[in-house]
Amino acid sequence: MNSVKVTFSPENIEVYVLPGTRIIEAAARAGIIIETPCGGKGTCGKCKVQVIEGKIEPTSTEIKLINKYDLNKGIRLACESFINSSCVIHIPQESKHSVGRILTTGLKGKKEIKPSIWKIYMELSGSTLENQTADLDMIRKVVPNGFKTDIYIIRKLSEILRESEFKITCVFSGNELISIEKGDTTKINYGVAFDIGTTTLVGTLLDANTGQELSVTARMNPQSIYAADVISRINLVIQEKDGLEKLHYQLIGKMNEMIDELANNASIDKKNIYKIVAAGNSTMQHLLLKLNPKNLGSVPFSISVREGIEIKAKKIGIDINSDGSIFVFPNIAGFVGGDTVAGILATEIHKSKDIKLLIDIGTNGEIVLGNKNKLISASTAAGPAFEGARISQGMRASEGAIEKVILNEDVKFNVIGNIAPFGLCGTGLIDAVAQMLRKGIIDTTGRIVDRKELQGKISEKLLNRIIEKDGQNNFLLVYEEFTQSKRPIFITQKDVRELQLAKAAISAGIKILLKELQIEEKEISEILLAGAFGNFIRRSSAKQIGLIPDVPSEKVRFVGNTASSGAEMVLLSNNLKEEVELISKNTGYIELSTKADFNELFMEEMIFKYVNKEDKNENE
Amino acid sequence: MNSVKVTFSPENIEVYVLPGTRIIEAAARAGIIIETPCGGKGTCGKCKVQVIEGKIEPTSTEIKLINKYDLNKGIRLACESFINSSCVIHIPQESKHSVGRILTTGLKGKKEIKPSIWKIYMELSGSTLENQTADLDMIRKVVPNGFKTDIYIIRKLSEILRESEFKITCVFSGNELISIEKGDTTKINYGVAFDIGTTTLVGTLLDANTGQELSVTARMNPQSIYAADVISRINLVIQEKDGLEKLHYQLIGKMNEMIDELANNASIDKKNIYKIVAAGNSTMQHLLLKLNPKNLGSVPFSISVREGIEIKAKKIGIDINSDGSIFVFPNIAGFVGGDTVAGILATEIHKSKDIKLLIDIGTNGEIVLGNKNKLISASTAAGPAFEGARISQGMRASEGAIEKVILNEDVKFNVIGNIAPFGLCGTGLIDAVAQMLRKGIIDTTGRIVDRKELQGKISEKLLNRIIEKDGQNNFLLVYEEFTQSKRPIFITQKDVRELQLAKAAISAGIKILLKELQIEEKEISEILLAGAFGNFIRRSSAKQIGLIPDVPSEKVRFVGNTASSGAEMVLLSNNLKEEVELISKNTGYIELSTKADFNELFMEEMIFKYVNKEDKNENE
Repeated sequence: MNSVKVTFSPENIEVYVLPGTRIIEAAARAGIIIETPCGGKGTCGKCKVQVIEGKIEPTSTEIKLINKYDLNKGIRLACESFINSSCVIHIPQESKHSVGRILTTGLKGKKEIKPSIWKIYMELSGSTLENQTADLDMIRKVVPNGFKTDIYIIRKLSEILRESEFKITCVFSGNELISIEKGDTTKINYGVAFDIGTTTLVGTLLDANTGQELSVTARMNPQSIYAADVISRINLVIQEKDGLEKLHYQLIGKMNEMIDELANNASIDKKNIYKIVAAGNSTMQHLLLKLNPKNLGSVPFSISVREGIEIKAKKIGIDINSDGSIFVFPNIAGFVGGDTVAGILATEIHKSKDIKLLIDIGTNGEIVLGNKNKLISASTAAGPAFEGARISQGMRASEGAIEKVILNEDVKFNVIGNIAPFGLCGTGLIDAVAQMLRKGIIDTTGRIVDRKELQGKISEKLLNRIIEKDGQNNFLLVYEEFTQSKRPIFITQKDVRELQLAKAAISAGIKILLKELQIEEKEISEILLAGAFGNFIRRSSAKQIGLIPDVPSEKVRFVGNTASSGAEMVLLSNNLKEEVELISKNTGYIELSTKADFNELFMEEMIFKYVNKEDKNENE
Repeated sequence: MNSVKVTFSPENIEVYVLPGTRIIEAAARAGIIIETPCGGKGTCGKCKVQVIEGKIEPTSTEIKLINKYDLNKGIRLACESFINSSCVIHIPQESKHSVGRILTTGLKGKKEIKPSIWKIYMELSGSTLENQTADLDMIRKVVPNGFKTDIYIIRKLSEILRESEFKITCVFSGNELISIEKGDTTKINYGVAFDIGTTTLVGTLLDANTGQELSVTARMNPQSIYAADVISRINLVIQEKDGLEKLHYQLIGKMNEMIDELANNASIDKKNIYKIVAAGNSTMQHLLLKLNPKNLGSVPFSISVREGIEIKAKKIGIDINSDGSIFVFPNIAGFVGGDTVAGILATEIHKSKDIKLLIDIGTNGEIVLGNKNKLISASTAAGPAFEGARISQGMRASEGAIEKVILNEDVKFNVIGNIAPFGLCGTGLIDAVAQMLRKGIIDTTGRIVDRKELQGKISEKLLNRIIEKDGQNNFLLVYEEFTQSKRPIFITQKDVRELQLAKAAISAGIKILLKELQIEEKEISEILLAGAFGNFIRRSSAKQIGLIPDVPSEKVRFVGNTASSGAEMVLLSNNLKEEVELISKNTGYIELSTKADFNELFMEEMIFKYVNKEDKNENE
């Protein structure tokens, strides 16, 4: 089956998807998270998009919810409509799940943008012989609530004041005067929010005055060159004399490169970036701040610092405005870091009356459960399988990765970039395993069933793909002639085992948290899937393999990269620094390994429960 | 007349004074300021000292005030007794005017030492797998009121905690955690108070826990090599590209040298010095902080910063504990700096019910007048004459300087170090001019009178010392055979003019301040003479030349180096940082040049009023 091209405006991002893909999913593929307050049930009508080229037939729900005039203009619901042919779709700003929306409208009414960096323009009268006023005191007279400042600022002050004829803009970070500029520069105020992932770095440049997103960029975390995961990076720090310095400077160098690109793309001067807000897991945040993470490498997994840290950006070599600062999120525990705090902030679970479950599947898998009364968190070593590591032909979700798999008579799959595949990424693996379970090719124990056992139960084409090697069965996903490498792509028995371990870790973790709060699965009002991976995962497949609780699909919501959106929120609203501090302090942490029943639950969750169960909607 | 040697114990400092010198004055010569709450009237009995070798006859006042037993033990009042022969005098701690006394007993009852640096020893329990606590949070649990800290500290924390088995001492500066040390180091806590004079630097090492003075050292301000006074240093900064850096680094280098010496002399490790408190005039404080003082060089004499500045000492290259800090005093105006604020703090004029006048004669002359209701200040360019600059044979008050002059039948003088003189210092000049006025050798206009006009009125010996040159008279103070250089030492007509200008500036300044507060001279309850120079000046001579108002001598009190003692006080009592901030804010500044009547008053004060008036007590 040929993929079809979808172009999203106004960003002009192209993606290739299988016919029958929902708009919301295609958009996620393009990195655009569409807001679905109703959970994708097609009832709220908030996820409106406009088909401006090509054709998408309206569904019955759409005909009910959307007026005729709008229907004719191509307005559709992203959670309802399926893409079957190439088209261009416009996603209006108000449909996007973005920090701007959260901040300006949110769920609880309008909130003001109150950036952590704020500017005041002032025309000062200067000093006179009769009434001598120190340079700094002139500014103090204008700023009612007082401020602190640094000797570097005072050193520049007298010259700037006189060169600008006492017409200056004062730049404040919270209650600190961080810069003084000639003339009126109040309109110029930028910041960058960073998601410091173990594998991926995402930077978002914002206009701090308006909240507008100006550019986004992503890079591999260069620390990956030295060590793929958190534990091996910690070990590198322990074993190599300059390990910490190496990992720290690699990261900083890459962030500076991203800042340059962000500024270039938005045609702004990086010297007008005053603020960086960064969220990552505890180890990444330690490395970012050049804090030694070695105690995270052994029991009791101690972190040096839990609280949020704000320092001058130049102190760690980040090249923005020379007086600019960086805020690094508070952590919760050794393996539940600032990215999770950012996720809680962005999803507002800590304010919710209803019980919610947040699952952030990055290289690690963090889980948060609860509501405004009580929140608890846990961490599982779930990630590598989902990010392609330890999977025989696994790869990251980048060009050439199989990201979607459907098994009917034969194998259908979609490849990122619409090229011949190199391998498969996490969602592709989950899809493949989910589909193999559905067809009975994998049994409840996770074993790939012998060809002869399936004879007559599945198509010949599928049957021929089960290939035995060294006493184990593997599933031939792509024949060699269709791959980039001209070598076949397999789902091996070992790959299935890796996925079993990962999903068992997460689902056993969820079970422990439920027990801890004495909550039943059905009391969960919403499951929030976060992380780069969370964007693309198919709910039906996730439920099929038992990765997430078996709740109705409308209760499962994709919330995108909440590490980024939480960081953006703090950038735009300084008050939230206190809020994240409270989240960090008040969110409990459960160390799963200390729970007597964890191992038992883990073993239970290794079992696949839903075999031979057909999807109602395989695209869901 | 031969000088006599006086040795002061326990310091073992030797000085040579003329017979007939009061003990209090000889002690001042040795750098020891004796407390005289009654103003030296011989009524309070607070200035008790003990003659332990040699003999000093008790005066009638002493016989009245001191019991027989003590009299026999050699107890005398320093303000009463005269030294006539070599002796050893013990000055008990309680008689010394020192910061320890001010702080611990003061005038208003006992005050606690509460150093700005405080330490807490703690034995922490560490983190457990079940109850994970971030390293920094362990400390937060122990410190009730919270604190801020720096990333550098957090970087070291985890290692120190574990190497010390969680037994650590936390070092705080105010509410900032500045250092973490292994084990219990609470007893080790040192600080240095610096008086940053234009000409002289004085450093005092204190035990911050006890207030005990451990060592003192003084140096020439090395900036003097480049430019002697404040104005020429400002000009150097304006004219030379690296002028500011040069002056700044010269000063810092010298301070580091002094810190090394202070630590060596007291046998302590300079890494245990956590705090520097420095007070100087506005320009010196700007140079210390590497703030450009160029706007102090022209109207309206703007300073960059008025308020006190606290920064990490290493930020300006001061080499103490790597986390130690320096507090630089707040200023009042361009030419009334932190040294004056320190002077107000040390003398507590800002708390006084009675009107007091503080005159700090250093290289500049600062004046403060008022009481707790209102304080105003002014600055006069008085200093150079008093420090020997611009005086033909002037020199600093160091070895070989004539520091005291008496004219009777002939000239008697005392030389610092009891050697042949090189020249004369400020007090010597004031003495000489005062004595010449008394003898009528100088008339009211300041003219050195012709020899023939004085014929029969003064001794032949004195008459022969008036020598005409180029139409002006000079006074031959020391014949060439008695000087070091084998060239005669003169008081020239020009020297008298310089002194006239200086004294006119100060006394006109005092008059303006009195007018400003609508106060009569007689309402001044006390005149406080501060500064290195203030220690040695003779009240009778100062009044004779009209430098200070003609009040009874008991109202004139020497308060020593108040820049140092104010700095020491802040070092030992962190609360005083707020107090000096209030002093700086609330002390008014009068720019004398803007006062219409200043020039007229200045001309009036050029006149010497007291000619041919005999001293009652020439040693006073």
